[in-house]
Amino acid sequence: MYGAIEAGGTKFVCAVADENLKITERISLPTTTPEETLAQVFEFFDRFDLEAIGIGSFGPIDTTIGSPTYGHILSTPKLAWANYDFLGAVKSRYNIPVGWTTDVNGSALGEYGLGAGKGLDSILYLTVGTGIGGGAIIDGKLREGLEMGHILLKKHALDDFSGTCPYHGGCLEGLAAGPAIGERYGIKGAELGPEHEAWDMEAYYLGQALMNYVLTLNPQRIILGGGVMKQSQLFPKVRHELELLMQGYINLPDLNTFVVPPALGDDAGITGALLLAKNSK
Amino acid sequence: MYGAIEAGGTKFVCAVADENLKITERISLPTTTPEETLAQVFEFFDRFDLEAIGIGSFGPIDTTIGSPTYGHILSTPKLAWANYDFLGAVKSRYNIPVGWTTDVNGSALGEYGLGAGKGLDSILYLTVGTGIGGGAIIDGKLREGLEMGHILLKKHALDDFSGTCPYHGGCLEGLAAGPAIGERYGIKGAELGPEHEAWDMEAYYLGQALMNYVLTLNPQRIILGGGVMKQSQLFPKVRHELELLMQGYINLPDLNTFVVPPALGDDAGITGALLLAKNSK
Repeated sequence: MYGAIEAGGTKFVCAVADENLKITERISLPTTTPEETLAQVFEFFDRFDLEAIGIGSFGPIDTTIGSPTYGHILSTPKLAWANYDFLGAVKSRYNIPVGWTTDVNGSALGEYGLGAGKGLDSILYLTVGTGIGGGAIIDGKLREGLEMGHILLKKHALDDFSGTCPYHGGCLEGLAAGPAIGERYGIKGAELGPEHEAWDMEAYYLGQALMNYVLTLNPQRIILGGGVMKQSQLFPKVRHELELLMQGYINLPDLNTFVVPPALGDDAGITGALLLAKNSK
Repeated sequence: MYGAIEAGGTKFVCAVADENLKITERISLPTTTPEETLAQVFEFFDRFDLEAIGIGSFGPIDTTIGSPTYGHILSTPKLAWANYDFLGAVKSRYNIPVGWTTDVNGSALGEYGLGAGKGLDSILYLTVGTGIGGGAIIDGKLREGLEMGHILLKKHALDDFSGTCPYHGGCLEGLAAGPAIGERYGIKGAELGPEHEAWDMEAYYLGQALMNYVLTLNPQRIILGGGVMKQSQLFPKVRHELELLMQGYINLPDLNTFVVPPALGDDAGITGALLLAKNSK
């Protein structure tokens, strides 16, 4: 059996699955302190005879093999977790292989292996929620160390909002993550209604980001997940903006199959962590 | 022996080299019509017993294996070359393997194999000249189909120039390629002198583009070539802008070895075409 941890900033999901990655049990628990949360994780996993575990973690985390802080959570506003040796804690509890990557890479792996990217070589998974992050699989290999939610973009002509990113102000995340929508309009995105002009502004930034990613990475498919993308009216708008901004410079594939929601829905992350477990053997 | 063609829009460079890729002879000839230019190329190569040929070509070109126009030059303002089956012409003259990629990918391969990228796994080569193009090698493999010179960017606060790109106006190429510098200041870049404020503006756009590439591709080194980068005062300015814009969000490597000129100088392209020949066997 394989174990998987989808470690988010507000909740942890743990699951165990059989050889075919069919999930047989799962739990969800709040993210409190490392000691408290991991104690519950261990209590859950202790009941099973696991071959390997995969972890997709909130971050920033160190994924550079050989680095002295490999496997640690780095500086995070969640102070109890800053500099915590997450991978080390799991490895010292269970003497089995443990796969380790970011939460968004976990979702990318899940969609690549068993979701909307199945059968392709190169995909991009972008999560648009309280932050924006991207995971890329290039020629079948996960590309570590990407932070593509923070690219700088051309400002929308009608947007006078300066952006929420504490580092860059108006980078993609600063202009288009959930908190930016909320601050720009003074009301949460989920309460704006699907006809609000906010979604055109949002699609402009996401379409522009997709254009830059396409020109820089050339993925075969782009999967857009995360809380903001639950606003399904965004999908046709984002496809339209991508096409409009590209101006025919390169031949885009059929946009309806090129820019898609996650096939695994909210299970992309935990599925990816299971794949990571299987591949870490 | 290996043959190599660096096919530019204004001149062709052809070379032959021994097994160790040491160039033994080379010619340079103007790019006129396909028939005339290729006749001279063939006259040169006919004198040698070649095992394989590599071509790095101006474009846009079709590099999609299996496409009906694979090996062709596509739509280009150089009308005599539009839809020309360049690869087919060389293949039907010589019954040997012929490698085929873009001119910028050729330079990227050259620098990766024998220049500033030697020994690394993942590099980015950016040429800044009459246009802007990028070639990326990711985990040892050339990534085809990139057009990263056309990414959209945040406008400089003091720049009211709308950009020269016929597709996107103010994309990177439209704002920062040679013609954009010339039009913005009404005088050729090479005549502005190294102290002109133009180079600060230029460095702002190049530094911003590098930031986006770093966040999206995570290369180990970035090599900046092309005519505009002969202005060597740009290198410290570009490094500075990259650092300034990134705002410490990710740990950048030592910038003096991270953002560098081509080690092969103007021979990057022909060297890459030779490597392409060797690898096509």
